[in-house]
Amino acid sequence: MHDQKKEQTLRLKRVQQSILALQADACIITSPVNQYWLCGFIFDGYLLLYPEGEAMLFVRRPTGIADERVIQIRKPEQIPSLLRSAGFSVPRRLLLEADQLTFSSATRLQAAMEMPELVNISGELRRLRAVKSAYELNQIRESAQVHRQVYELIPSLYRRGMSDLELQIEIEREMRLHGSVGIFRSFGENMDIFMGSMLAGDNAQAASPFDFALGGAGVSPLLPLGANGTKLLRGMTLMVDMAGNYRPWMDDMSRTFAIEEVPDIARRAHQLSIDIVRAIEQSTRAGTPCADLYLLAERMVQEKGFQSYFMGTTQQAKFIGHGVGLEINEPPVLTPRSEEILETGMAIAVEPKFVLPGIGPVGIENTYIVHENGLENITLCEEEMMML
Amino acid sequence: MHDQKKEQTLRLKRVQQSILALQADACIITSPVNQYWLCGFIFDGYLLLYPEGEAMLFVRRPTGIADERVIQIRKPEQIPSLLRSAGFSVPRRLLLEADQLTFSSATRLQAAMEMPELVNISGELRRLRAVKSAYELNQIRESAQVHRQVYELIPSLYRRGMSDLELQIEIEREMRLHGSVGIFRSFGENMDIFMGSMLAGDNAQAASPFDFALGGAGVSPLLPLGANGTKLLRGMTLMVDMAGNYRPWMDDMSRTFAIEEVPDIARRAHQLSIDIVRAIEQSTRAGTPCADLYLLAERMVQEKGFQSYFMGTTQQAKFIGHGVGLEINEPPVLTPRSEEILETGMAIAVEPKFVLPGIGPVGIENTYIVHENGLENITLCEEEMMML
Repeated sequence: MHDQKKEQTLRLKRVQQSILALQADACIITSPVNQYWLCGFIFDGYLLLYPEGEAMLFVRRPTGIADERVIQIRKPEQIPSLLRSAGFSVPRRLLLEADQLTFSSATRLQAAMEMPELVNISGELRRLRAVKSAYELNQIRESAQVHRQVYELIPSLYRRGMSDLELQIEIEREMRLHGSVGIFRSFGENMDIFMGSMLAGDNAQAASPFDFALGGAGVSPLLPLGANGTKLLRGMTLMVDMAGNYRPWMDDMSRTFAIEEVPDIARRAHQLSIDIVRAIEQSTRAGTPCADLYLLAERMVQEKGFQSYFMGTTQQAKFIGHGVGLEINEPPVLTPRSEEILETGMAIAVEPKFVLPGIGPVGIENTYIVHENGLENITLCEEEMMML
Repeated sequence: MHDQKKEQTLRLKRVQQSILALQADACIITSPVNQYWLCGFIFDGYLLLYPEGEAMLFVRRPTGIADERVIQIRKPEQIPSLLRSAGFSVPRRLLLEADQLTFSSATRLQAAMEMPELVNISGELRRLRAVKSAYELNQIRESAQVHRQVYELIPSLYRRGMSDLELQIEIEREMRLHGSVGIFRSFGENMDIFMGSMLAGDNAQAASPFDFALGGAGVSPLLPLGANGTKLLRGMTLMVDMAGNYRPWMDDMSRTFAIEEVPDIARRAHQLSIDIVRAIEQSTRAGTPCADLYLLAERMVQEKGFQSYFMGTTQQAKFIGHGVGLEINEPPVLTPRSEEILETGMAIAVEPKFVLPGIGPVGIENTYIVHENGLENITLCEEEMMML
């Protein structure tokens, strides 16, 4: 607990450096994930931070938080006079999480703070969070260990004649019994998902409106993603990409299962995915450009002639991975046009996947920690296609 | 399916009347729930509607939607020139969902549409959705029937020595097997929840940052709400308020369970909750002010001297219910200051609840359809406190 306070103090200091670098007077943090990152708890209210000094927590709800930085308020309009009476100046150039706050909330806050200039700090906070502390990396390692335990139960949960969704429901139950918090935190407006994705057979070809690597039709028009009730039949593949949210800091892992026996092309494409992550493991370290990981994968896919199955068929993602942390999609992004460079302390998920018409999705996804000298694979779970 | 198209056409016409009433040139719909309401599917893109004529669907993702109104785009900046080349004027006064769109997305759209005047249509769409069609009401009835089936399984899922969370996990599994879509759609920025709320013993007194009737500490700092691992012990009460999302249009229902034997005060407070919903059923119909429902409940609570337990202890909600539909919190709201009037075709959840220190939460929540002559209770599930 004491160490957690120290971590939070360091994180607040990093944000204060960003406030200075962005030549702003202060920032206000309202998103649950960033409040948790900076304070260790979530509240309905405003974390106000100047470039120097302690944070002030203007809290609407709940009452009774045991933290001396808390100032209880009913509405944001109270903030300026509270600041003035405490001897602070009201910020003119204010950083807000404009990628998370709604337009209504941001403009209300702007008026409440007496019309300051608003600047977006969402991306900067995401960049800060992308480089993890030793504690945070250990959380991701622990999550990956539990993730592995759950995936290893899958053969025992499978019964012949099940649908993708029926198997998913049994996995969801094991996830919860193993400590999954349930909600799956992501960044952005096109990221609706429940507890993860299970894709079998040709459902993996169904395009989705959401920004995930693969799609799937889903079972409800209100969530067009993932399992659609496909019966698991001999000759199909099934990709399991369920959440690794066993700690506040998450890992990400996908594994592929073969229903009884699958065609040779599925085995070859799956092996290519394993070969790609092996090649990436050997060529990557802190300092490697993120685009290089995509380009290496693309080259290997082209050599084998698997381009038309790579990252989907009808809708192909030009992407093979992403950072993970408090949200499932953190920087950096592994795309051909990414200008990001890997740094020590980043955690990245690498997921070169293939979708084979008439068969289903194959490939693996591992989570790695970036070190000065290389990548550390923390998702130490059988990579071969497992038979169900 | 044909009927669904007719419904969608009528809904679009209602929105077009609102555009005229708000003296706007057009509206753009981007939220998944309102896209589903108006089109029957969700997409990454922009539904553009003028006061007359057909909707235009500018779709970024997915490709291949079978709807002749779809115009595939890569980015919103393409919209004005597409409109001009089709002979439409670019709207100057534009209605947007400002309560749902992020500040970044709204301002990007504003720039893309060449700096129109932005007006918020979120509240108006919520008011339109609050009055349901016969089809929508029937969806809510069907959801409530499945909800009842799941709640009736609870005694068979319970094992002595379980925690609130362990029982919740078994209920979650049954919910999914009975067709729950999983994600629990709500409106607003302080509504984080997984599949519902289970509160046992004094955890019901724990205040939460989120805007639900009751709180609970939760099991993770990333989701401070609901079950916290409390062992279910003799003399405690347990309130089950899990989602009724078995159809796109939802119902809402809470029931209370007694662990073996509970003190008499718990039985009396629970009976008061039942008496309140009975009194509300008899006095309420289309035309009744929403505030009256709260005030009637408050009067009955005061007569029995139960004020300090009503809707919480440390943090009391001045609220006894809300509309339900595609989102769990729709208009109207049943508060003492509500100025809303009940209308035929509304669906409302009424939830007078009590929290008893040292025992736990008691009371019920029913969902009603508002008719000209009265309320129709659709959550026809045993209301007495059930023994576990």
